[in-house]
Amino acid sequence: MDTDQLTALLQSFRAGDIDQSAVIQRLRRLPFEKLDFATLDHHRAIRCGCPEVIFCPGKRPEHVTEIAARLTADGQTVLATRADDAQRAAVADRFTNVEIDTIARTLLFNPPPPPTSADHPVGLLCAGTADLPVAAEAAVTLRAMGAPAVRLNDVGVSGLHRLLSQIEILQTVCAVIVVAGMEGALPGVVGGLVDCPVFAVPTSVGYGAALGGLSAMLGMLNSCASNISTVNIDNGFGAAYSAALIHKRLVKPAK
Amino acid sequence: MDTDQLTALLQSFRAGDIDQSAVIQRLRRLPFEKLDFATLDHHRAIRCGCPEVIFCPGKRPEHVTEIAARLTADGQTVLATRADDAQRAAVADRFTNVEIDTIARTLLFNPPPPPTSADHPVGLLCAGTADLPVAAEAAVTLRAMGAPAVRLNDVGVSGLHRLLSQIEILQTVCAVIVVAGMEGALPGVVGGLVDCPVFAVPTSVGYGAALGGLSAMLGMLNSCASNISTVNIDNGFGAAYSAALIHKRLVKPAK
Amino acid sequence: MDTDQLTALLQSFRAGDIDQSAVIQRLRRLPFEKLDFATLDHHRAIRCGCPEVIFCPGKRPEHVTEIAARLTADGQTVLATRADDAQRAAVADRFTNVEIDTIARTLLFNPPPPPTSADHPVGLLCAGTADLPVAAEAAVTLRAMGAPAVRLNDVGVSGLHRLLSQIEILQTVCAVIVVAGMEGALPGVVGGLVDCPVFAVPTSVGYGAALGGLSAMLGMLNSCASNISTVNIDNGFGAAYSAALIHKRLVKPAK
Amino acid sequence: MDTDQLTALLQSFRAGDIDQSAVIQRLRRLPFEKLDFATLDHHRAIRCGCPEVIFCPGKRPEHVTEIAARLTADGQTVLATRADDAQRAAVADRFTNVEIDTIARTLLFNPPPPPTSADHPVGLLCAGTADLPVAAEAAVTLRAMGAPAVRLNDVGVSGLHRLLSQIEILQTVCAVIVVAGMEGALPGVVGGLVDCPVFAVPTSVGYGAALGGLSAMLGMLNSCASNISTVNIDNGFGAAYSAALIHKRLVKPAK
Amino acid sequence: MDTDQLTALLQSFRAGDIDQSAVIQRLRRLPFEKLDFATLDHHRAIRCGCPEVIFCPGKRPEHVTEIAARLTADGQTVLATRADDAQRAAVADRFTNVEIDTIARTLLFNPPPPPTSADHPVGLLCAGTADLPVAAEAAVTLRAMGAPAVRLNDVGVSGLHRLLSQIEILQTVCAVIVVAGMEGALPGVVGGLVDCPVFAVPTSVGYGAALGGLSAMLGMLNSCASNISTVNIDNGFGAAYSAALIHKRLVKPAK
Amino acid sequence: MDTDQLTALLQSFRAGDIDQSAVIQRLRRLPFEKLDFATLDHHRAIRCGCPEVIFCPGKRPEHVTEIAARLTADGQTVLATRADDAQRAAVADRFTNVEIDTIARTLLFNPPPPPTSADHPVGLLCAGTADLPVAAEAAVTLRAMGAPAVRLNDVGVSGLHRLLSQIEILQTVCAVIVVAGMEGALPGVVGGLVDCPVFAVPTSVGYGAALGGLSAMLGMLNSCASNISTVNIDNGFGAAYSAALIHKRLVKPAK
Amino acid sequence: MDTDQLTALLQSFRAGDIDQSAVIQRLRRLPFEKLDFATLDHHRAIRCGCPEVIFCPGKRPEHVTEIAARLTADGQTVLATRADDAQRAAVADRFTNVEIDTIARTLLFNPPPPPTSADHPVGLLCAGTADLPVAAEAAVTLRAMGAPAVRLNDVGVSGLHRLLSQIEILQTVCAVIVVAGMEGALPGVVGGLVDCPVFAVPTSVGYGAALGGLSAMLGMLNSCASNISTVNIDNGFGAAYSAALIHKRLVKPAK
Amino acid sequence: MDTDQLTALLQSFRAGDIDQSAVIQRLRRLPFEKLDFATLDHHRAIRCGCPEVIFCPGKRPEHVTEIAARLTADGQTVLATRADDAQRAAVADRFTNVEIDTIARTLLFNPPPPPTSADHPVGLLCAGTADLPVAAEAAVTLRAMGAPAVRLNDVGVSGLHRLLSQIEILQTVCAVIVVAGMEGALPGVVGGLVDCPVFAVPTSVGYGAALGGLSAMLGMLNSCASNISTVNIDNGFGAAYSAALIHKRLVKPAK
Repeated sequence: MDTDQLTALLQSFRAGDIDQSAVIQRLRRLPFEKLDFATLDHHRAIRCGCPEVIFCPGKRPEHVTEIAARLTADGQTVLATRADDAQRAAVADRFTNVEIDTIARTLLFNPPPPPTSADHPVGLLCAGTADLPVAAEAAVTLRAMGAPAVRLNDVGVSGLHRLLSQIEILQTVCAVIVVAGMEGALPGVVGGLVDCPVFAVPTSVGYGAALGGLSAMLGMLNSCASNISTVNIDNGFGAAYSAALIHKRLVKPAK
Repeated sequence: MDTDQLTALLQSFRAGDIDQSAVIQRLRRLPFEKLDFATLDHHRAIRCGCPEVIFCPGKRPEHVTEIAARLTADGQTVLATRADDAQRAAVADRFTNVEIDTIARTLLFNPPPPPTSADHPVGLLCAGTADLPVAAEAAVTLRAMGAPAVRLNDVGVSGLHRLLSQIEILQTVCAVIVVAGMEGALPGVVGGLVDCPVFAVPTSVGYGAALGGLSAMLGMLNSCASNISTVNIDNGFGAAYSAALIHKRLVKPAK
Repeated sequence: MDTDQLTALLQSFRAGDIDQSAVIQRLRRLPFEKLDFATLDHHRAIRCGCPEVIFCPGKRPEHVTEIAARLTADGQTVLATRADDAQRAAVADRFTNVEIDTIARTLLFNPPPPPTSADHPVGLLCAGTADLPVAAEAAVTLRAMGAPAVRLNDVGVSGLHRLLSQIEILQTVCAVIVVAGMEGALPGVVGGLVDCPVFAVPTSVGYGAALGGLSAMLGMLNSCASNISTVNIDNGFGAAYSAALIHKRLVKPAK
Repeated sequence: MDTDQLTALLQSFRAGDIDQSAVIQRLRRLPFEKLDFATLDHHRAIRCGCPEVIFCPGKRPEHVTEIAARLTADGQTVLATRADDAQRAAVADRFTNVEIDTIARTLLFNPPPPPTSADHPVGLLCAGTADLPVAAEAAVTLRAMGAPAVRLNDVGVSGLHRLLSQIEILQTVCAVIVVAGMEGALPGVVGGLVDCPVFAVPTSVGYGAALGGLSAMLGMLNSCASNISTVNIDNGFGAAYSAALIHKRLVKPAK
Repeated sequence: MDTDQLTALLQSFRAGDIDQSAVIQRLRRLPFEKLDFATLDHHRAIRCGCPEVIFCPGKRPEHVTEIAARLTADGQTVLATRADDAQRAAVADRFTNVEIDTIARTLLFNPPPPPTSADHPVGLLCAGTADLPVAAEAAVTLRAMGAPAVRLNDVGVSGLHRLLSQIEILQTVCAVIVVAGMEGALPGVVGGLVDCPVFAVPTSVGYGAALGGLSAMLGMLNSCASNISTVNIDNGFGAAYSAALIHKRLVKPAK
Repeated sequence: MDTDQLTALLQSFRAGDIDQSAVIQRLRRLPFEKLDFATLDHHRAIRCGCPEVIFCPGKRPEHVTEIAARLTADGQTVLATRADDAQRAAVADRFTNVEIDTIARTLLFNPPPPPTSADHPVGLLCAGTADLPVAAEAAVTLRAMGAPAVRLNDVGVSGLHRLLSQIEILQTVCAVIVVAGMEGALPGVVGGLVDCPVFAVPTSVGYGAALGGLSAMLGMLNSCASNISTVNIDNGFGAAYSAALIHKRLVKPAK
Repeated sequence: MDTDQLTALLQSFRAGDIDQSAVIQRLRRLPFEKLDFATLDHHRAIRCGCPEVIFCPGKRPEHVTEIAARLTADGQTVLATRADDAQRAAVADRFTNVEIDTIARTLLFNPPPPPTSADHPVGLLCAGTADLPVAAEAAVTLRAMGAPAVRLNDVGVSGLHRLLSQIEILQTVCAVIVVAGMEGALPGVVGGLVDCPVFAVPTSVGYGAALGGLSAMLGMLNSCASNISTVNIDNGFGAAYSAALIHKRLVKPAK
Repeated sequence: MDTDQLTALLQSFRAGDIDQSAVIQRLRRLPFEKLDFATLDHHRAIRCGCPEVIFCPGKRPEHVTEIAARLTADGQTVLATRADDAQRAAVADRFTNVEIDTIARTLLFNPPPPPTSADHPVGLLCAGTADLPVAAEAAVTLRAMGAPAVRLNDVGVSGLHRLLSQIEILQTVCAVIVVAGMEGALPGVVGGLVDCPVFAVPTSVGYGAALGGLSAMLGMLNSCASNISTVNIDNGFGAAYSAALIHKRLVKPAK
């Protein structure tokens, strides 16, 4: 039932062509009938301020550009993740207002201006240099959602002093993203040093018993710190998305 | 090096007994020497407003009461989780100002007054009746940390109308905890309906291919919704702890 | 929004108190608002003819009897599965029109009369005697849903002649349930002999590398026969439920 | 023992050359002796109306064309699945009456005419665009077996309204195939909305904890809906085969 | 079709009531019809000389005695494995000619006389004392099947000299059973020392990373010795059964 | 200690240069000292009649030819397995008396004459055409060790009649090798039909839940037939080696 | 061949009864013949100074006392691990010079005097109170082998200051044992702080995704610190044994 | 806080600008403030004598040369592991004093002179030729750290005599590294023959149930020898690093 049909129904009712119980009977089934959901979705996107996101794997380059063209038609910020070389090339050919990050493998269409305030920043920690691409995906996501970031790289647990020397910075953030592979121990250490949620991102960095990131993921899920939650392996986007939602609410609380 | 030693060092320096470079040399090693950390920890506890937490498994009943007595000496709120029958009985014998929840298996010493404001509530959803004990642990944790909760029980995905009928309530919360066993599908559905972080708690409810909660946990980690992060199986406490930290920051933002 | 609210809204509209666009705006959000879903559910239960089902594990005996009392109030058939000794005893104390099966661990309240026709029977095969409780759960489920069954027990693949001698019977059924533990090979053999869907039920029978039924489950999922689908370990109920839906549609086709 | 030998045996018996007990003794061993099984198979194929199926992986292109040529000699419909580029090219070179689907990776030789009736259609749902190749394999299988399909694409659980808006269509089908990767939550949602068997197809779509489709598969096997059964990862063919057998029986019930 | 039916069919044929092609048509379907299989099985048991075997788990004590009574009615040797205390007690009450082994948890009804010749013995090695119950099950199985055994206990790889000192004995056997838990290394060592098949039996002895015997099992399956094959965890019976079949063929070669 | 040293020691003893206890002391340590093991190995190879075997993976082509040249210097039969294209080419360049099998990926240097007798053949069964390379490796191994083979291809469980029609042949063999992927059900079926050891070879054929052959392997290890033992995935060589050892002992029994 | 046989052989040789090549032939086979290994073992035990160890699980109480009585007959130190209540009670009844530790579940017969020097101590760290039993087993093992220990308890990574305050002590040790459950992160942190081998002991402490200690074990095996090696779950004994061997060599270097 | 800030603070204190309690308050927080850690690290490197290590995977060739250039600026020995072809080529182009090992995939910059003493050598055993690259990595690591090595190759358990003939050599070492794939049995055998720590290195050599080295790793973790600890799959570096630390302490004991 779309808006036209609904209008017709109400007019029939006011005109007395159908009685009230028939209208109620009809409307009762509405929850599972077809409405103008695009509008609803549009509302929701505007309300939450989050960009549309395109997950690139499995899509052909022309598919990515087509989707991006449609979503960005009205100048909206759109983020594409996991873009491969061909997809990035296709986008570079067709779009101008796009930031392409080859480390993060992201495309940021109609990038927003940088945050005007550094209030409530999100911490973004990275255990080793091999984890940097995942951290970069998180960084671009924060940028796409307007959240300022405080980054610390190469602060893994086997050289603890690098982390400890930065502890004051850590205590200003509203959420922390911790990206780590191998044994995945960093989030537990960080969790004991801050009083905000820690979003742990296991990476597929490692070999052998790293099991493609499963060991790091299991380690994070078992952390004895109280404030850790975990996302999928290499999912820098997801952790940043959740962290940015916290930032957004603090700078402009929901109703 | 404790405060006395530090005082003596500084006095020697001011007195000219040792020169500045010696003091610097000595102080440079401080990061790895013994300080009065209890004080530091005390500061941190006061600052973040989180109760101390006792994880009961593996502790003898008298051990639990002893720890609780020490931690509650100054009237601080203390939460104990996973308390078994004997531990609960021992606590009931010795303490008066304690709330004992046999479903949640929690002990809440010196419980705080209820939240005076319902602002920024935390959503707490539970897929099935068998998941209720885990949800109860989360509920007590929220209560211990002063966060108001909005609860929806028995809203699993195979009867979706129960969830959809409550959607307006969901849109007021600052974070959602979703407790679900079996296929762990509920967080992904909820994630698409709200614009705040969703903390997914897999439960060990199920049999056979449920693998003691691993299947639910894997499902949640793979959710295609962007705002989901996951805690350990049956860890209602951890999800609530992270969610309450978000609430706390919204009602009294960090510096 | 319940019926009363909807009535009030429509009356306000007819009375001209609110204009049409406001009503449409309000109704557009209906899909996610509260309706009188119980009615809807009631309709659905009557339409599909399936009994309500209670999954007993984790429920206290008095909990089971209470739920059963409510659901059976109007004489409807209700099936409870995985009932333990205490739950069965509590039900035996309070209910009269109930069939209690200690092997299947089921409770069948207000059992329906036996099927009047043997048309479109469901095959129910069981590989070994240790698999019988799971097969029994399937049998009671078929009975609860009014589907006639053809049962073959102890027809495992290491004694193939027992199965082959019954092949004519197998070719009359509209669906086959195959219950097997250990290597889970029987469904693949049966699948090659019939031209209807085969619902494979792995059981937790076995030891060591049986991995509590996982090996049987994996075997069934890998079957090279084309017509096999698989349910959870020991889930005789689920396989029978699907099979009975096929039977039901054949004896009284859906619109 | 072939037909000639059997004829000879019976003639010897009628001629009195051997006595009855010798014949019985000989015949009793027949179940494990060589008969003219090709005939039997032929009968079965005709009876059940299912096309022959070629599983292409591991076969050389000329092997595929050779098998296809033999099987299609009498104009029978033959379906080949998982055909790679070389296999598809070899078939395109040699056959004319064949439909080649590069998305589904299928070859359909001597395709049947479209179904003349839309009665008892099979539902075919797909959670995300990356799952489309698996859904396409299912669609071609339904077509090969003469079953009309109702398709819904991109109806994953994180955007539930897209599914709910189509619910009336879902309630007309005789079976549903649900193709989903990642957390595999869609079948459980669909299962609660329909009253027919749901065949869940996990896909290998996803990364990290998706474990190549295992997480989706485990989620589906643990579904709390009663009417779900599951096939192997990416096995769109198998789900469609089972669903089409239900359709076939409804339009022309078995004896 | 049983013997009576077959007799009738043949008589009809000889009497000319039905013609030859009808008989052939009927007989051609025999492979999948019901014959007097018990007889066939009986023949097979006599031919191969193997005892009937009862796998006790999941059977009630009276069930075990009943089956045993039936199978032993004609004095045949029958072996029951994995008998628990109650099952052993029930058997001790009712049977006289039975050997009950509480370590092996076996019941041997109508035990055969000891082998009259020590030719072609089977080697039975056991890595540690905790593996002895599994080795005992193997020993009883060899005894039940009339195969002489050469046993070496406590010859694990961390004390290699104990094994090496017995190497001459090992070189007389026709097959070796190697029972080992923990790392499961013994079969590979033994495999390099003998020129006959080695049947490796992983046991559930161990803890932690032993994974209930899976680690031992995986180790054995990966052995770099050429002559190792493996049975299920704790399956002393299966290894002994295969080994005894080799012995049997050597002392009385098959046709 | 080599032969020269031993000779010198004995001569010193006979000459009275050292006393008997010193010799004993010296000799007692012999088990762990260096002897002329090559000779010993040579003896063993001659005694057991098995060819040397080269496992090719990870070896450079010139490495393979070098090893082969050394081992075949005295005309001995040598088998190389898992040879890739480059290794096969290098061997073809340098050797003349070698059989190269591209399906089995084997090299058989100095192949023995075919068996002069068909007594005690080894059965070699293969479930599907995709399993043929593994079966081919087994076949070449049997040939290398002089064991006659009876082969049945494409006798998988979903078309059981193909197997059953060959059952008389199966009953003549001294051991059976069963090669099967996917659900791995064939060995259990065969095990119930023969009275000799069955060596089950899981293959990596399949996809998704086949887990690279692990599901087939687990199925075989859980077989309810008594006479099954299992080798590593795709290890046709190992199964054939064990089976050939049984054949060898039957045609020329060990002392 | 025992000493008597060897003596006879040498005498025959000296007497000229057999020639030298026969002696060599006979002696060449010695490595695999029976020597007086008990003596050899005795030598080894004395040389390495390690106590005999009894692994108690699966042994009956009287079995443990019997073995202990034999091994301690000459006053040697003997360590028994994993002793349960009944085993400890049986030992307490019969032995006097034994230290029984109910937390560590150890029995230390004829305990050695405490180390006279604190040189080259072994560090023994424990992450949480629930890990203490495993640490206690390690402590008793160190004591049994005469190695002085430096213990730090409750120094898990979520409260890092507790560990860092002790860092000077850590830098005096010759090896560190780190006992930790849950995420197993502590060894990696410690590894970065010391310059000696770290033996990591995962414990079965935790729940859900802890997988009985597997997650901690995997974390430790993936540690990015260079000096970590890992033992089995809960194997405090093994880690201490290796660490004590390092201590022993430092205080009295091997030849 | 760096040195300048600390100097300023002390001067303010001595000048009386701030009082003692303020200094103490400031210094108390030092453990978590920024110090001149580079210096500290430099001290540590000099003290322990271990080279810096570069883990190459995931680094671009120019990245590797850049890091190496910086670390080797003062002539320090630097070891790079897992260098691929491009990385090795880039290094060969730019550096002269570097040893490049294509088997071990290592780069050793400024290699130290060979050990002047063979005291306290490290044993390095390798089970099969395919394990050689991992053993080579261990060998280069030992060389980089100045530890003499005793190597035994191709001493796997299926040819035990090769190992046993070398046993005297084994008894001189201060630690043993055992590299083995497939069933991983060698460390357990070696562990029983030596009285020093054994560092077990599982390799990814094998196929099928080898699970990429997991089976070997699990076998080693379950070893029944007391002196085994295990490192990650293929981690020859880690095992050698720990072993070399033992050597270093023996030749120049720590304070």
